[in-house]
Amino acid sequence: MANVNPPAEKATLYLEDLRVTQQFVSGAYQIDEEQIRAFAKQFDPQPFHLDAEAAKATFFGELVASGWHTAAITMRLLVESGLPIAGGIVGAGGEITWPKPVRPGAVLHVESQILELRPSRSRPDRGLVTIRSETRDQLGEVVQVLVAKLVVPRKLPAESPAENSLMNPT
Amino acid sequence: MANVNPPAEKATLYLEDLRVTQQFVSGAYQIDEEQIRAFAKQFDPQPFHLDAEAAKATFFGELVASGWHTAAITMRLLVESGLPIAGGIVGAGGEITWPKPVRPGAVLHVESQILELRPSRSRPDRGLVTIRSETRDQLGEVVQVLVAKLVVPRKLPAESPAENSLMNPT
Repeated sequence: MANVNPPAEKATLYLEDLRVTQQFVSGAYQIDEEQIRAFAKQFDPQPFHLDAEAAKATFFGELVASGWHTAAITMRLLVESGLPIAGGIVGAGGEITWPKPVRPGAVLHVESQILELRPSRSRPDRGLVTIRSETRDQLGEVVQVLVAKLVVPRKLPAESPAENSLMNPT
Repeated sequence: MANVNPPAEKATLYLEDLRVTQQFVSGAYQIDEEQIRAFAKQFDPQPFHLDAEAAKATFFGELVASGWHTAAITMRLLVESGLPIAGGIVGAGGEITWPKPVRPGAVLHVESQILELRPSRSRPDRGLVTIRSETRDQLGEVVQVLVAKLVVPRKLPAESPAENSLMNPT
């Protein structure tokens, strides 16, 4: 079903190489309590991310990772193995949700699918790609959904016949 | 114009204490090249976040912070001084954009405004708050916009007369 990104594909895909519905699957990343606490201490110092005992009296009832930690790990997985875009992964923004908390010991991976491709009207050297990335745990349950808009370089000049192949068929 | 969050207000606001249009301003946080590179090494290892020289040949043309680093710093500012919600800042998700890159030396702060308040229908002990948080640099320019949905606890039971005051007037 999905592209598992063999090394030969690393960071070589231009807008012309992508198609709507194309899928990518990242490698895996295990998160532990020490990482959760270290990230939280630096960026999200709240009891439910810092201290398992104190977390019991909070909304979550247990120690869970910061959603921004999950987002950061998702980015690492995309950069290292999940989305081999030429020139790197450059996001303009997106929508993020965290349907399920990430607990210590979770093994995360990212499954991505391209939703839309759009060449830039003003900049013929690039396009905008909308991609949905689901971060899943070892049970296959979704812990984060990110629908992001990425700036992706084009291989060919705008007047190329390849232009038509970039249009979103939907 | 805005609430500067005196210490007495720290983490004490319930759904009933919030109103649409209410504003909050966080303290400041300066980001430097070492922090940008350390975050990138761990979570977003791309040349434009890791190496000023290598960054020149990239989309950005210079070293800039990962957008997820900006998001994480924004969260820290909100937790420490920007949004004193009782029980902590618990996000269900949101929309994020990065209109301008964050460069080394930038001094960031967060300006937040409440857009919508909605008591939960199924859970009388809480509500959902939509809040727009603009992260600005020392020039006042917006480097990130986050429109987040937060889960906020209620002080009063659902049958309280305070119910009406929670409705979004728009």
